[in-house]
Amino acid sequence: MKKTIALLPGDGIGKEVVDVTVDILKAIAEHFHHQFQFNYGLIGGDAIDQKGNPLPEETIAICKDSDAIILGAVGGPKWDQNPMELRPERGLLGLRKELDLFANLRPIKTFESLLDSSPLKKEYVDGVDFVIVRELTGGLYFGKPSERIVHEGDDAVVDTLLYKRYEIERILVSAFEIASKRRKHVTSVDKANVLESSRVWREVAEEVAARYPDVTLEHMLVDNAAMQLIRSPKQFDVIVTENMFGDILSDEASMITGSLGMLSSASLSSSGLHLFEPVHGSAPDIAGKNIANPIATILSAAMMLRQSFGLEEEAKAIEKAVDNVLNAGNRTADLAEDGKAVSTKQIGEEIKNAL
Amino acid sequence: MKKTIALLPGDGIGKEVVDVTVDILKAIAEHFHHQFQFNYGLIGGDAIDQKGNPLPEETIAICKDSDAIILGAVGGPKWDQNPMELRPERGLLGLRKELDLFANLRPIKTFESLLDSSPLKKEYVDGVDFVIVRELTGGLYFGKPSERIVHEGDDAVVDTLLYKRYEIERILVSAFEIASKRRKHVTSVDKANVLESSRVWREVAEEVAARYPDVTLEHMLVDNAAMQLIRSPKQFDVIVTENMFGDILSDEASMITGSLGMLSSASLSSSGLHLFEPVHGSAPDIAGKNIANPIATILSAAMMLRQSFGLEEEAKAIEKAVDNVLNAGNRTADLAEDGKAVSTKQIGEEIKNAL
Ligand SMILES: CC(C)[C@H](C(=O)O)[C@@H](O)C(=O)O
Ligand SMILES: CC(C)[C@H](C(=O)O)[C@@H](O)C(=O)O
Repeated sequence: MKKTIALLPGDGIGKEVVDVTVDILKAIAEHFHHQFQFNYGLIGGDAIDQKGNPLPEETIAICKDSDAIILGAVGGPKWDQNPMELRPERGLLGLRKELDLFANLRPIKTFESLLDSSPLKKEYVDGVDFVIVRELTGGLYFGKPSERIVHEGDDAVVDTLLYKRYEIERILVSAFEIASKRRKHVTSVDKANVLESSRVWREVAEEVAARYPDVTLEHMLVDNAAMQLIRSPKQFDVIVTENMFGDILSDEASMITGSLGMLSSASLSSSGLHLFEPVHGSAPDIAGKNIANPIATILSAAMMLRQSFGLEEEAKAIEKAVDNVLNAGNRTADLAEDGKAVSTKQIGEEIKNAL
Repeated sequence: MKKTIALLPGDGIGKEVVDVTVDILKAIAEHFHHQFQFNYGLIGGDAIDQKGNPLPEETIAICKDSDAIILGAVGGPKWDQNPMELRPERGLLGLRKELDLFANLRPIKTFESLLDSSPLKKEYVDGVDFVIVRELTGGLYFGKPSERIVHEGDDAVVDTLLYKRYEIERILVSAFEIASKRRKHVTSVDKANVLESSRVWREVAEEVAARYPDVTLEHMLVDNAAMQLIRSPKQFDVIVTENMFGDILSDEASMITGSLGMLSSASLSSSGLHLFEPVHGSAPDIAGKNIANPIATILSAAMMLRQSFGLEEEAKAIEKAVDNVLNAGNRTADLAEDGKAVSTKQIGEEIKNAL
């Protein structure tokens, strides 16, 4: 198989974790006789520094000419005081909108070998296995007006939570599709006792649910969901929610396993061009030190192989190699006891060898 | 001291927990020679059933004629299918707006005797002691438009996140005032990398911080805050945030201690007429069974004595009685091992005796 992969390392530890991941993908290509071509693009702070734009036109072109995209991370204190248009996050938000990456998928699954890393007690996290499906191109993130105004004679500011009905429908369809291949339970999270958008969301969820008679739909208020994620995370199979709620809940959920450095994500578009990235950010404090955990990015690459290229066997090979390396006791600094950590490159080598 | 207290028991377990609390307040009045007059009002589902309105005019009048308000809880499945204006929550939201209860305070503090109840490991929760200050009368909860529209030719729906600058300022002032009497650290939570309202929030926070040179201000993005609450809850002293973020984060935070039935809250107005209520809801599944935990409401009454009436000694007496009763091993069903629970009324009696 011949595939073109856009690589957007971005900022901070982004470069290091993408480098290691490319090594793994090269090993996979060799072993399984595929041809992967890698095209690098600039995004985030790096792109601001080099091109004065967090999302240069070339980067969009590189992505559009590719079969899938792997992103490292964007952001860092260096650009925090910049005006909005010149901030790294704008690159990521722009890419989501430009490529219509409307469905963000975050699997939350405990690794047997890392059970003790969680802030939660073992009995709460052992066996957790769910996916958060977050809407990614609508809601408060993109609604207009988003500006300072005078309201009833007073200085005020407004943001807009806007959804088209079809945007709500397609994300719910994604969630039901995923659930139908899993344990067949969708928890739709909203704030229907306050928001009109949530009441439409609930209606559309019911409509979509009627098309999936074997999948159970449960509605849950967002405040309760924030509690339930801690109180009994095992109850969830697929959680689906709008953009801002999803931002908050998926980061909360990423703490359940206690191993943020292990969590991968996919952002899917209807065109078939998807983006894969680790859940963790650019971690500027540890950038360039060869201590970051590259596994989240490596597992994101496995998601890509499966989801974008249909390469199930190859994806499994990576996931199994990661498991083996962890079971053998290898840990990067984020998960290791003091003085026992292996480096970013070392753990990459171990995984490559385990393939 | 002579005070009038409005009692709004509301729905579900609301009545039971308010009943027990009134007993305690009567004991306090007797012991410390105060006169408390109690005026009952209808709210929520109960008010819908009896008056066809979740917030009858009489209830507002009763509150306005009182020196403080104690609320039980509102809501239940019975009214879930009602149209919006006839839902129990409308009573609560209406009361907040009507009385301008703009500052919701939720102390999150672990009880030594209940450390083991938390889903989090002991070392994460032992010593947790912070307050969430949530803006309660603005943002997405009350902004207009909140309605179905046609947008660019498509069916759509919109909600509005609106804040006047003075609303942002006064809640930040509340937070800094509270912090200046505590460990002098304010964490202001926003989503400034996406929302214009958050950028104004951040500006105002800086302005207010300049007036409190001995209080440290930290900005934190809401997604990160959702993580940090689990990862290291001890870092917080005072968290301040807007209405919807506060709704989500305060419910998440209520899981840290593992004892929702113990958590009290205050909603403060600028007029001096404040409302006190337990954090837990109406729990319709256990209503009328004499098994609910009344301590959250009892501790809310203690907050009232301190905050509204300046009765520090009386507030402490209640808090101490609660501590003693817990230390003696008394637990309601939510916290007890199987078969060892005491009833709502029993634990109320124990606390009264311990006063
Ligand atoms: C960087 C930021 C704009 C972004 C978001 O809020 O979507 C991030 O938090 C994420 O979840 O990918
Ligand atoms: C009942 C509901 C409208 C309310 C809110 O969202 O404010 C509740 O969740 C709360 O936190 O008091």
